[in-house]
Amino acid sequence: MFYIDKRLQYPVKVTNPDPQFARMLQQAIGGVEGEIRVAMQYFFQGWGARGPNPKYRDMLLHTATEELGHIEMLATAVALNLEKAPASLQEAGAVDAVVGAVMGGENPRHVLEGMLHRHILSTGMAAYPANSDGVPFDMSHIYASGNLAADMYCNVAAESTGRVLAVRLYNAAHDQGMKDMLHFMIARDTMHQQQWLAVIEELGGHEGVLPIPNSFPQEMEDQTHNYDFFASAADGTPPMPGRWTGGPSMDGKGEFTVFQNVPLGEEPNLGPARPDSGAQKEQMG
Amino acid sequence: MFYIDKRLQYPVKVTNPDPQFARMLQQAIGGVEGEIRVAMQYFFQGWGARGPNPKYRDMLLHTATEELGHIEMLATAVALNLEKAPASLQEAGAVDAVVGAVMGGENPRHVLEGMLHRHILSTGMAAYPANSDGVPFDMSHIYASGNLAADMYCNVAAESTGRVLAVRLYNAAHDQGMKDMLHFMIARDTMHQQQWLAVIEELGGHEGVLPIPNSFPQEMEDQTHNYDFFASAADGTPPMPGRWTGGPSMDGKGEFTVFQNVPLGEEPNLGPARPDSGAQKEQMG
Amino acid sequence: MFYIDKRLQYPVKVTNPDPQFARMLQQAIGGVEGEIRVAMQYFFQGWGARGPNPKYRDMLLHTATEELGHIEMLATAVALNLEKAPASLQEAGAVDAVVGAVMGGENPRHVLEGMLHRHILSTGMAAYPANSDGVPFDMSHIYASGNLAADMYCNVAAESTGRVLAVRLYNAAHDQGMKDMLHFMIARDTMHQQQWLAVIEELGGHEGVLPIPNSFPQEMEDQTHNYDFFASAADGTPPMPGRWTGGPSMDGKGEFTVFQNVPLGEEPNLGPARPDSGAQKEQMG
Amino acid sequence: MFYIDKRLQYPVKVTNPDPQFARMLQQAIGGVEGEIRVAMQYFFQGWGARGPNPKYRDMLLHTATEELGHIEMLATAVALNLEKAPASLQEAGAVDAVVGAVMGGENPRHVLEGMLHRHILSTGMAAYPANSDGVPFDMSHIYASGNLAADMYCNVAAESTGRVLAVRLYNAAHDQGMKDMLHFMIARDTMHQQQWLAVIEELGGHEGVLPIPNSFPQEMEDQTHNYDFFASAADGTPPMPGRWTGGPSMDGKGEFTVFQNVPLGEEPNLGPARPDSGAQKEQMG
Amino acid sequence: MFYIDKRLQYPVKVTNPDPQFARMLQQAIGGVEGEIRVAMQYFFQGWGARGPNPKYRDMLLHTATEELGHIEMLATAVALNLEKAPASLQEAGAVDAVVGAVMGGENPRHVLEGMLHRHILSTGMAAYPANSDGVPFDMSHIYASGNLAADMYCNVAAESTGRVLAVRLYNAAHDQGMKDMLHFMIARDTMHQQQWLAVIEELGGHEGVLPIPNSFPQEMEDQTHNYDFFASAADGTPPMPGRWTGGPSMDGKGEFTVFQNVPLGEEPNLGPARPDSGAQKEQMG
Amino acid sequence: MFYIDKRLQYPVKVTNPDPQFARMLQQAIGGVEGEIRVAMQYFFQGWGARGPNPKYRDMLLHTATEELGHIEMLATAVALNLEKAPASLQEAGAVDAVVGAVMGGENPRHVLEGMLHRHILSTGMAAYPANSDGVPFDMSHIYASGNLAADMYCNVAAESTGRVLAVRLYNAAHDQGMKDMLHFMIARDTMHQQQWLAVIEELGGHEGVLPIPNSFPQEMEDQTHNYDFFASAADGTPPMPGRWTGGPSMDGKGEFTVFQNVPLGEEPNLGPARPDSGAQKEQMG
Repeated sequence: MFYIDKRLQYPVKVTNPDPQFARMLQQAIGGVEGEIRVAMQYFFQGWGARGPNPKYRDMLLHTATEELGHIEMLATAVALNLEKAPASLQEAGAVDAVVGAVMGGENPRHVLEGMLHRHILSTGMAAYPANSDGVPFDMSHIYASGNLAADMYCNVAAESTGRVLAVRLYNAAHDQGMKDMLHFMIARDTMHQQQWLAVIEELGGHEGVLPIPNSFPQEMEDQTHNYDFFASAADGTPPMPGRWTGGPSMDGKGEFTVFQNVPLGEEPNLGPARPDSGAQKEQMG
Repeated sequence: MFYIDKRLQYPVKVTNPDPQFARMLQQAIGGVEGEIRVAMQYFFQGWGARGPNPKYRDMLLHTATEELGHIEMLATAVALNLEKAPASLQEAGAVDAVVGAVMGGENPRHVLEGMLHRHILSTGMAAYPANSDGVPFDMSHIYASGNLAADMYCNVAAESTGRVLAVRLYNAAHDQGMKDMLHFMIARDTMHQQQWLAVIEELGGHEGVLPIPNSFPQEMEDQTHNYDFFASAADGTPPMPGRWTGGPSMDGKGEFTVFQNVPLGEEPNLGPARPDSGAQKEQMG
Repeated sequence: MFYIDKRLQYPVKVTNPDPQFARMLQQAIGGVEGEIRVAMQYFFQGWGARGPNPKYRDMLLHTATEELGHIEMLATAVALNLEKAPASLQEAGAVDAVVGAVMGGENPRHVLEGMLHRHILSTGMAAYPANSDGVPFDMSHIYASGNLAADMYCNVAAESTGRVLAVRLYNAAHDQGMKDMLHFMIARDTMHQQQWLAVIEELGGHEGVLPIPNSFPQEMEDQTHNYDFFASAADGTPPMPGRWTGGPSMDGKGEFTVFQNVPLGEEPNLGPARPDSGAQKEQMG
Repeated sequence: MFYIDKRLQYPVKVTNPDPQFARMLQQAIGGVEGEIRVAMQYFFQGWGARGPNPKYRDMLLHTATEELGHIEMLATAVALNLEKAPASLQEAGAVDAVVGAVMGGENPRHVLEGMLHRHILSTGMAAYPANSDGVPFDMSHIYASGNLAADMYCNVAAESTGRVLAVRLYNAAHDQGMKDMLHFMIARDTMHQQQWLAVIEELGGHEGVLPIPNSFPQEMEDQTHNYDFFASAADGTPPMPGRWTGGPSMDGKGEFTVFQNVPLGEEPNLGPARPDSGAQKEQMG
Repeated sequence: MFYIDKRLQYPVKVTNPDPQFARMLQQAIGGVEGEIRVAMQYFFQGWGARGPNPKYRDMLLHTATEELGHIEMLATAVALNLEKAPASLQEAGAVDAVVGAVMGGENPRHVLEGMLHRHILSTGMAAYPANSDGVPFDMSHIYASGNLAADMYCNVAAESTGRVLAVRLYNAAHDQGMKDMLHFMIARDTMHQQQWLAVIEELGGHEGVLPIPNSFPQEMEDQTHNYDFFASAADGTPPMPGRWTGGPSMDGKGEFTVFQNVPLGEEPNLGPARPDSGAQKEQMG
Repeated sequence: MFYIDKRLQYPVKVTNPDPQFARMLQQAIGGVEGEIRVAMQYFFQGWGARGPNPKYRDMLLHTATEELGHIEMLATAVALNLEKAPASLQEAGAVDAVVGAVMGGENPRHVLEGMLHRHILSTGMAAYPANSDGVPFDMSHIYASGNLAADMYCNVAAESTGRVLAVRLYNAAHDQGMKDMLHFMIARDTMHQQQWLAVIEELGGHEGVLPIPNSFPQEMEDQTHNYDFFASAADGTPPMPGRWTGGPSMDGKGEFTVFQNVPLGEEPNLGPARPDSGAQKEQMG
């Protein structure tokens, strides 16, 4: 169970509220790269963790709990960026004649509000659990497979796209407070990338965990094509060479080879439609 | 652009059609661990690939093209498993009296069809792009971040959960043809896990690619907490030790430490609601 | 605006309530082939109808209003099918020992309820606006393009898949009341297929409406390939001949020809990633 | 920010694991009546709370934090119900011949697993954030309007449907541990219904809060129809009388009256389609 | 079944078409606070209404039918606001040089159209059933629980957020016709808030309906915590006092108390992963 | 299975990159009228095709394969339009003072980026499988009914709305390269409209295929109302006459008639709620 300290994990200050930036921050709340995703992903992985070693459950729940605090920081940042329109806009009366002509008779506040409508129409100037396009976060993005190593790679993926997003937001930020908050979040993403990879190392690295799941006897998979790079060029042009087209495989259990893809199967031939299946008569032959 | 050979990449045979297994196979078509996802993910990563080295685009498009053929194999397998009900069911008249009572007056065919209704009601006994619960695949699961290393980890994650699913389907399969098809697909997932990790190695491994994105100057992130494991226990119980709680970080650029999480920020204080914002009067103070 | 008569458009009677059939009927309520879809599609097409001739708006609104009554009939049918479990189930105590063993200790009512849980858990035995898998209807399926002819074909498509579904439900129905209700709905789908095609005819048939939109000067489209069937076989095998591979086109404005698809463009070459775009350094070359 | 105690808020015990009940419990995790919904709804309401009185934010965050612990309890309950199949099923070999015939050659375990496939195929026997049909929870159900009174009614609605669901699960439960867990959760829903209504009372009850938002000057709304019950019967049959058809309104500010609905507007007449709008020529008049 | 009068329930006039406002109005059509939601919610509640007293079904269907006419009014308003661009924009040629530079070479019409693209690209200048961000309405928002009191609170919630939205739109409107239409709709929302609360009163008010469902014997819920406000502060800081922290409960059946939340359960301990479950070997212990 | 030629089907050139147009093009990638939809729809129809004549499967797979190349062209076009901001924007410093005032202190690049945020925040300047509002494509739009004629009309509908969209994009395009690409795509849509209608003709035209499905004995549908246009005007005003209100039906099997809609059924009367169903006591009567 959980407890709260109503103070934030890290300071969130906004000197010059920027409604556009509020909208951008939504991506870090409700985008697939965002904080709801990682918090819930780590919780569900932790709550479902099976196996003799409780340390993975322990680790997941610590970090999930931390991520909740990140949603809170971002929601606060959105609300502060919507706090009031920047002074230059509120005092923009002087340029209204020009702007009115440009924008087809609208005043600039209206145009800006138009771009921000969901924050006004639905939330009264607060954050909501959707991305920067207003698409609500959908929990199918919570990956928790029941396989520890697969889950760790899902987490590395989430933290990698997450830090990419945080860096893009940092680069787009103009407010010092926002830059400060984001430079902390970027640091946390650095650590989170590390820690999931540390689990992989602890489990034996590439040789220990691969192929995932390592509990399936590898001799039961097709031994002919399990380390082949399949080339699909219509005219047989070989693929550009890379680490994956030759040499020992990453898990040390095979040798990379290039295989020009050809059909090993036949053209399928489905039976006719059933008489009572609602098909056309011509399909029942 | 693309070409087709109407033969399948690998043989798909079904000796004893099994509508329940058809439904399970849907997870590998339209589940988040499935083949539509990887095909489209690799295509969009390839079509958007930027950078001086064209080999990554090349690699992505080869494999995406292969994955299209996997969707085709699975769709064929679903159709064949729905081809006809197993003979023992069609001839189950002898047990109808018992079964009818058990199932509340229904005959067994009806019950079984009830469990399979979408395949009957909407497709006339064919595959469709949804998972085994009938939830349609949603393209927000196509991860293509514009960052090559992040995308590679997304791909490892997809192939790891994908091979876990294929193994579970293999374990659930009773038909030799289905086991054969799946033992090929499992082998391909083995390779695909390998090849995305091979890109990571080629890019410099943990030291070269981390933290992702490596283009952001790491000295701009918070230097105090970028290699700290944050512990969140309410009573200060330290986290269970692991590779992530001490020792050099995976990228060789820091040292793991445990940090007992405490608020560094303050309790936020949002301003009152705007007079025209549709809040209650009491919120406008 | 609208009025109601609380009587149903057509009698809905259920003699032997069948919870499985209730679940199947959901597809006709909230499936993409269902009645919410057509009602809302015709309303939105009607409400947005533009053009000098008001008869199309008139027609659309009449039929949309009829379709509302179909949702009502189906919702009633679902509720009646859930009214009470069939007597043979309620009195099934005699077979409980056998069934209990078969089903792993559960009694048959529990198993049946398990298959029906959403109707119990969320609605208390009533219809809800989702398909037979419980996937909620999503209004992106309301096609209203602003082009009258395109909309008519969308409507033919909806009524065609709709009648296919109604026929499948008819074939699955065991209750005379349900068969009666469905034989009425099937008849209405027959008419609705007709009426949208009648608009196409009134607008000039294939020659008058095609290509849609007919307001775009056809000489502005590529004149080389607008009546070519593109063949995509990797080895150049020609496509199987059909009405579409030769002879005059349906609109009488061209001649069908087969064209073996070949690339007319070049391999694309995107520029490097921007320095501040959160890509890896290696992509910025 | 947040802290965790890895012990559960209330004991969760399962004596006889029941995979069907695990699936039912999913509705309480990821259904629209479930715990993810209330936890996140109260968090987002709290994080966006504006106004001079901080007590509402305080209250919302306390309860949101509690609800997180409820998701945890339910996720644990699902995992325990999937822990192992009931012994009677594992030992069901004796009835396999009969069952095999009934179910079309499948053994009973397979059938049961078929009904549970998502828990096997995607999670390896753990909870996931979807409802009992496998439809993922979608964050558009987090209602946080920026209006305190509206939000309180949204919360009463959530706790009312939530307690209805918990009672249905209690009635369906066979395991004493599950009944115990649910009898605690039902009690908490009782309190939560109370507390949101207590806010309404504190804000002045019906007279103080209605109509919501009370910050809009009521004299600006249409004074003719703001306390009329509109009757829509086609033949003018009056509505059945109730508290809402006569007498003083709930807020004491009006008098309920019945108004037979008639069109006050005209038939709309939209202009023709624009020449460049992709409509048919016939729509451009 | 239903009938139509093609005249609108209330006049809809637009003097100065405003495409931005058209987009805002979409929230009232296809937003979760919008009219499709209430129309369909009341219909499904009415069609599934059970119980000896038919007056609730009667009431629900009257109002649902009215709400259909509101969707129609709003769809008309959207179409009229898209009718033509405001004259000042069409004649904005004089400022094109400046604007072109500002907007990167685009003319202002293009920029404005860019912001409105879905109305142009998909509908040809008409309304569609999505919110102001273009997110389609999803029928999972139709709450119909089978419990009359719970449904009434869901309806109060819908009408409360609905009136908040209508007020925000009124405040944003510049056109007198739009203000007139909205002042009527706001009045109707006033009544609708009233009428659902009137049902609650008729059913006995707080004492009669609470806790919902009132059919579950309250002595079967946990008697220790059913009127406790759970405080979750990590350091034990008591919650701010309010109506909900002390005094008689709203239903008169208990006494509010504050309870400092502590774990009553233990840390859960799930069994190891099954050997055939696709987990890593290390999880099988 | 499939092969790739990395050259594009048709040249894609962009002289003046236009991020707004990139966003518009997304509708043709991930909109319901877009290319992912048709590619996947034709694939699933082809993979599930049943019946004695393999030519329909052949035709569907050829065209599906072509459509894949169209997604590729559009994804390339999006990436090229995002390649770099137009020079006039990059050099817009001179107008920054004015613009800054207009836009409330923002520089124009920021505003423009704000409108494009998803392309920056999530993709690093590449296409993604969502529509122009950022709503991800959802595979429930893949219509494949198992009925050949129904599927053909679904395809005509898709290509009709598809060509309408392409024409709208053509009309909005300013760049010659984009106009060239679109004039090719418009031509292909012309052909695709033709070819699906050619199948209908080959199957016997209106008389042969209607009503769909033609395998259901038409004498089993209600013979009284299967060619009636139902009029729903509350006051009995007859519908405006059209091809659908009189004369022979399109399939030559009936005669169109107008029928004034009246209830043929009774007001439904559902039983009381079950005692254990979580309803209010008052509903159990």
